[in-house]
Amino acid sequence: MERLIRPLDPLALSSAVAVALEEDRARQDVTTLAVVPAGQRGSAVLRAREAGVLCGLEAAREAFAQLSGELAFVALAGEGSSVQAGDALAEISGPLAPLLQAERVALNFVQRLSGIATLTRRLVERAAAGGPARVVDTRKTTPGLRALERYAVRVGGAFNHRNTLEDGVLIKDNHLRAGEARGASIAELVREARGAVAHTLRVEVEVTDEEGARSAAAAGADVILLDNMSPREMREIVERAGDGRVLFEASGGITLETVGAVAASGVDLISSGALTHSAPALDVALDVAPGPGTGSP
Amino acid sequence: MERLIRPLDPLALSSAVAVALEEDRARQDVTTLAVVPAGQRGSAVLRAREAGVLCGLEAAREAFAQLSGELAFVALAGEGSSVQAGDALAEISGPLAPLLQAERVALNFVQRLSGIATLTRRLVERAAAGGPARVVDTRKTTPGLRALERYAVRVGGAFNHRNTLEDGVLIKDNHLRAGEARGASIAELVREARGAVAHTLRVEVEVTDEEGARSAAAAGADVILLDNMSPREMREIVERAGDGRVLFEASGGITLETVGAVAASGVDLISSGALTHSAPALDVALDVAPGPGTGSP
Amino acid sequence: MERLIRPLDPLALSSAVAVALEEDRARQDVTTLAVVPAGQRGSAVLRAREAGVLCGLEAAREAFAQLSGELAFVALAGEGSSVQAGDALAEISGPLAPLLQAERVALNFVQRLSGIATLTRRLVERAAAGGPARVVDTRKTTPGLRALERYAVRVGGAFNHRNTLEDGVLIKDNHLRAGEARGASIAELVREARGAVAHTLRVEVEVTDEEGARSAAAAGADVILLDNMSPREMREIVERAGDGRVLFEASGGITLETVGAVAASGVDLISSGALTHSAPALDVALDVAPGPGTGSP
Amino acid sequence: MERLIRPLDPLALSSAVAVALEEDRARQDVTTLAVVPAGQRGSAVLRAREAGVLCGLEAAREAFAQLSGELAFVALAGEGSSVQAGDALAEISGPLAPLLQAERVALNFVQRLSGIATLTRRLVERAAAGGPARVVDTRKTTPGLRALERYAVRVGGAFNHRNTLEDGVLIKDNHLRAGEARGASIAELVREARGAVAHTLRVEVEVTDEEGARSAAAAGADVILLDNMSPREMREIVERAGDGRVLFEASGGITLETVGAVAASGVDLISSGALTHSAPALDVALDVAPGPGTGSP
Amino acid sequence: MERLIRPLDPLALSSAVAVALEEDRARQDVTTLAVVPAGQRGSAVLRAREAGVLCGLEAAREAFAQLSGELAFVALAGEGSSVQAGDALAEISGPLAPLLQAERVALNFVQRLSGIATLTRRLVERAAAGGPARVVDTRKTTPGLRALERYAVRVGGAFNHRNTLEDGVLIKDNHLRAGEARGASIAELVREARGAVAHTLRVEVEVTDEEGARSAAAAGADVILLDNMSPREMREIVERAGDGRVLFEASGGITLETVGAVAASGVDLISSGALTHSAPALDVALDVAPGPGTGSP
Amino acid sequence: MERLIRPLDPLALSSAVAVALEEDRARQDVTTLAVVPAGQRGSAVLRAREAGVLCGLEAAREAFAQLSGELAFVALAGEGSSVQAGDALAEISGPLAPLLQAERVALNFVQRLSGIATLTRRLVERAAAGGPARVVDTRKTTPGLRALERYAVRVGGAFNHRNTLEDGVLIKDNHLRAGEARGASIAELVREARGAVAHTLRVEVEVTDEEGARSAAAAGADVILLDNMSPREMREIVERAGDGRVLFEASGGITLETVGAVAASGVDLISSGALTHSAPALDVALDVAPGPGTGSP
Repeated sequence: MERLIRPLDPLALSSAVAVALEEDRARQDVTTLAVVPAGQRGSAVLRAREAGVLCGLEAAREAFAQLSGELAFVALAGEGSSVQAGDALAEISGPLAPLLQAERVALNFVQRLSGIATLTRRLVERAAAGGPARVVDTRKTTPGLRALERYAVRVGGAFNHRNTLEDGVLIKDNHLRAGEARGASIAELVREARGAVAHTLRVEVEVTDEEGARSAAAAGADVILLDNMSPREMREIVERAGDGRVLFEASGGITLETVGAVAASGVDLISSGALTHSAPALDVALDVAPGPGTGSP
Repeated sequence: MERLIRPLDPLALSSAVAVALEEDRARQDVTTLAVVPAGQRGSAVLRAREAGVLCGLEAAREAFAQLSGELAFVALAGEGSSVQAGDALAEISGPLAPLLQAERVALNFVQRLSGIATLTRRLVERAAAGGPARVVDTRKTTPGLRALERYAVRVGGAFNHRNTLEDGVLIKDNHLRAGEARGASIAELVREARGAVAHTLRVEVEVTDEEGARSAAAAGADVILLDNMSPREMREIVERAGDGRVLFEASGGITLETVGAVAASGVDLISSGALTHSAPALDVALDVAPGPGTGSP
Repeated sequence: MERLIRPLDPLALSSAVAVALEEDRARQDVTTLAVVPAGQRGSAVLRAREAGVLCGLEAAREAFAQLSGELAFVALAGEGSSVQAGDALAEISGPLAPLLQAERVALNFVQRLSGIATLTRRLVERAAAGGPARVVDTRKTTPGLRALERYAVRVGGAFNHRNTLEDGVLIKDNHLRAGEARGASIAELVREARGAVAHTLRVEVEVTDEEGARSAAAAGADVILLDNMSPREMREIVERAGDGRVLFEASGGITLETVGAVAASGVDLISSGALTHSAPALDVALDVAPGPGTGSP
Repeated sequence: MERLIRPLDPLALSSAVAVALEEDRARQDVTTLAVVPAGQRGSAVLRAREAGVLCGLEAAREAFAQLSGELAFVALAGEGSSVQAGDALAEISGPLAPLLQAERVALNFVQRLSGIATLTRRLVERAAAGGPARVVDTRKTTPGLRALERYAVRVGGAFNHRNTLEDGVLIKDNHLRAGEARGASIAELVREARGAVAHTLRVEVEVTDEEGARSAAAAGADVILLDNMSPREMREIVERAGDGRVLFEASGGITLETVGAVAASGVDLISSGALTHSAPALDVALDVAPGPGTGSP
Repeated sequence: MERLIRPLDPLALSSAVAVALEEDRARQDVTTLAVVPAGQRGSAVLRAREAGVLCGLEAAREAFAQLSGELAFVALAGEGSSVQAGDALAEISGPLAPLLQAERVALNFVQRLSGIATLTRRLVERAAAGGPARVVDTRKTTPGLRALERYAVRVGGAFNHRNTLEDGVLIKDNHLRAGEARGASIAELVREARGAVAHTLRVEVEVTDEEGARSAAAAGADVILLDNMSPREMREIVERAGDGRVLFEASGGITLETVGAVAASGVDLISSGALTHSAPALDVALDVAPGPGTGSP
Repeated sequence: MERLIRPLDPLALSSAVAVALEEDRARQDVTTLAVVPAGQRGSAVLRAREAGVLCGLEAAREAFAQLSGELAFVALAGEGSSVQAGDALAEISGPLAPLLQAERVALNFVQRLSGIATLTRRLVERAAAGGPARVVDTRKTTPGLRALERYAVRVGGAFNHRNTLEDGVLIKDNHLRAGEARGASIAELVREARGAVAHTLRVEVEVTDEEGARSAAAAGADVILLDNMSPREMREIVERAGDGRVLFEASGGITLETVGAVAASGVDLISSGALTHSAPALDVALDVAPGPGTGSP
């Protein structure tokens, strides 16, 4: 079986769309409700205006569906597929007014999620050229949209890191320094963490140099995060501190230019915050074709 | 009196922060609660890592405050001020655990809002070099964060367009074509809109050429949106179709490179979707200094 | 195309009905659930007990529908139609228990909204006899029911003023006096307001005498509210301060007796708070015809 | 101890006020935030413009308090007191902007609740002239405001009937006819109701004639509702069907003119829907006195 | 007509199930979504593993339905029926993944509610052997689940006491002592309560000895709660203080062993907190039979 | 540093208490508000009526605090401490009415959580006598109360298993059979799971015999759940299939009688559903001492 990409939580999707439609007061669009009679129908094509990776079509479907049960939505391209400028992504048809009312919200979702999936795909491809490391996201997501953005990362071909502070253990630099301040070693912190959290979680430790990596490995860390190191430094640590059991994660300053070399260093994981905090929107538009107006509004 | 910049709705702020903290499960940070004793204290400095315009400090303050009433937050730079890499933006001190637990959420807000304010400031400055036009945002905002992003636009020095579909009238290309399909002219659409909406709203019409602009002006439109035109085309329309009463808005393809020429065309308003949908995050970090641990956790 | 009356936001409707049913604990009606077997069916006719304008039938439909998907609801009169005592407005049929459980909530909505539409229709008709002014509502609505009451005003034939403090500009007496206290003239206030709000909004200014009206017009106000003046005073102001561009709104002490003379004064708008804060309920009742009980509950 | 008037649920109050402030978007009042500097202060007096019974002052206090923690609110008249036109009801002072932003919401509550308390007081006084019957409200309340309106009824001097369909038993005409249709007598319905509901509830039965009243009394009903009868009819039933244990409630067509005679008929309870569904608002206004503006907004 | 058992409020049910599914993050079950292809189907049987009274099948149905509209649910046993170890209670079939994802939540509801119904049935049967008293529940329910647990009590054959502090009057020991402290007698408290609450509610008074019972009866209490007395004491009070009108409720220390003797004492009501606060879960399991996997996930 | 017991999420606590107070309509307690004057004060002692482990005192504190800011709450015993019948746990003093109104809700929380902590402590002590295994809870918690019940488990001395289906991987019997049905081995399932979930999670596999355990270990499972086996079987598997890296969890039929032997088998973890689904409430009561009533209510 191929890797199953966990779908977006349907409740998270419908809730995010409902919030966005209400935020835009789409149901009380004073312009459309004043100049488009209720009986007028039409159709529209969702179309890419630049090349990228499609993501978020279900959000568009949901936006139109929440506005009117009479709008038909037909997907013309697959989630995660590579699209070119001009490609038709979906066709919507039915009563014209709700189609226009939901347009902006539908586009806002598709543009943002496709933007993330597009950047992710590029990074994943560049990384793959260097080595088999798994590209993963971070918690640097847009407030309120983490579930959607993490999904776009999966669609783009990368993997998720821990979702929240509750469901993953990462002893970071600040924790280590806090430990130092009270005289606790890395080994003690790892032991404390294991003693407090569920046995179902691995323990990851962030380090900034080889000595740290050796200490963490000796302390029984399951994963070691190498913060802001050069590929060469990382390669040395992986080779010298690795024991076949511990995983290494590269973090900090990952770009399209550097990710290949980072992957080639032998790390198991490469995390990138830019995937979610700085991906530009993909340009997508809706071409509408109104039908003739009816006599009665 | 200087222009008053309408502050962020405090409820929208506290609600967005609450959602983000819960999304991150910050209160159940298994790592911090396992390795940082409740009695350990510390301080931290919020610091810019690149130059830009600061925005969202209140969101950071709110994030720390929601985690613990004992965390003191002192702003060291003003909202909307230009900051340089290395500048201290705020200092937070108190119990160390909640400080670490709220870190990511606080940063996510400041980074995004400062990113928008930074891009906005640049566009506003470039536009000002060309002419006195008002730079305005669009409805191309992140789903769920419109209030915050529109605030960042104001802080950056630009203005807001209509907030929602309910509180502004904009007869767009699709409305015109829908009107055409049932035999209704621009003049009829403008009359229908005026006849349906509150007298407190102006009527804006989108056009794609000079003929459209003339028709809209003749129909009594208050504002005319010039879609995707060259500065030269816009200058001609402003000069030939303007009557001293109607306002002109330039829209489509506005970039840092073109905005000066657009402003010089004599339009009154320049709208840009990129302000909110494609501004990269500003790099901001938190430098933490743990105090000594206490004997009792 | 006739004026399109913007329909009630379906979410506002379903939410208001849901709140009301829960407020009445209709689903746990201890009486009905104790004495009406689940299998017993029946029908009922919603009937006017006095003459008026019908409004809110969709709220009744929604109330019955939320209680049971098996209740059929057939409207027998149109929203906004004039009804006489004894007229059948709708017929409901299906399982008897939920029909009885939703009765009070359905009636409460229809009675209140029809009461507002009825008073509005009367005022609009009296105004029309005096002149072409638009009758508009105010923000003096029942807390929590503004969307519904504004809809009833539209159904009654009048228009809405601004919906909220966010989507319309009205510089009132108190703002002027606040300006005065810091040495700011009407002209400065108008300039400040324009400089802060979206270009899509008109600026309205409240005045109490002709001098104020002249100042406001000179300051570029788009709309001037004439507060508590006699029709004669208003006529003089409209004639002497009007410039063909500015609109005049009459406000304060509008009654069925005075509205005709006010409309005859030449003002463009007449606002009335009584439409929403003091309209008596229209008497409407439900005549139920139970079917035979079934053997098994 | 005097009768304790159960206060309004503080959560219902704060929630209703929060909904109303948000419905009015009071925190984003574009006018006030554009023309009133943050530093300007002022004071205001809440004043009756006509005679009536004051109710809802706590709602006004809550509205101002939710807008700003710096607004001081001093009540100048007691809840339930009789006020005359011109009477000062409360004084509010502090920052001017939030004072103006909350004004409308505060007034909307006080006007409506005082309107209900005023009508209630009148009805209670007229009833008292006829006899000792308790005046009670009905479930004909404004959707969403039942808790507040029932409180205004108590403040006006009357009593509450059951709050919801869950917390009181009232076998109405429709239940009786539904029973008939399946061959169940009044006695059987009363038995069924008692057999299903908590022993803490009394059983009330609605009847339309003396025979019904006798049957209900014989069936063990605790309370008998006499629907739409003349005072004379009611007197006869009370005298002939009463047993010193059962209570009688008069209902239907109660007016200020008839309530005295109804009370004189000897019934124990008189219910009136008009108290809540048709009470006109009491005219109350806010007189604002701005202080001097500060130099810095 | 047999006693109608008031069904569970469908909103309370769907809301409780939605909360539980979200609490378990059932829609993002990382295991199932990783190893069960979307196309794989299966069936399952809900089966009792010990004898008891079935309750909560609708909650199980709702849990599966909320996860997927394609899951078919067929009840194989009736609500309130006695089941034996091994009995099939329901069959579920359809897509395998959502079936597995909802399993735990469905079981958690059925186990708890059946546990309560089972204990209730036992207590009711033991009581019935002693006399005709009604077994009733208390407010000692699980926080947040009162509606469901009270329903399980009804299904088990007992009755509900008052639902909340608002819909029933019970003057308890602490109220009496508070009255004493200010010099108020039982009679005064009963009069105060009657004077404040709706006429639809009975007044119940808790007493600890015969003198209290006599005072309460003389004061006009409708129900008298006998707290923690022996069956003999209760029998004497019922016989000596009863007047054919007042009801007696036994409370405190009711067990399966004592309830028969308590019922034989002649009390009308027997209340038990253990029904809801200490009923062990009934052991119920789900036997799943996966179908063959499909080729494409 | 001792093991830090992660505290209850303060939001989960305040939210659960708010729901419970509203569920009980504590703020509208008709009895107390009718017979206890607002000015009367009093104090109360929370007291154990049987021996056990105290848990949930903060919930009691929160309940009283939500009812009135004037109630003082002083804890007299520590969370997790062993208490005896008669021990004072906390003292509450202030206005008497809210103290009585919050009583039941406060007790319901303390009784339930202490019940769980008490049973947990017993099981943990018995297990400790057999070996060093960690006792862990399951997802068999009360719907809506998982966060609180898991906290009570920690207070009782045991550990938490995964919190939700999203934050832990457990390939159960049904997943294995679903895999079999499509021809996928344990090894393939483990690989699929690892390939889909975050690297921060361990992979646990449920097996029913030694062969399964060997396969799971060979497949690289991190944790192996031994379902319903005898201590002897488990000991053999631990000895023969263990490799020093994999952890073993015993599950199914754990009782106070058997847990010692299970722990002695050498497993690392012992999970028990009974901890949360069948712990009887601990008997706790509130002894109230009213002060004298004041003259004015």
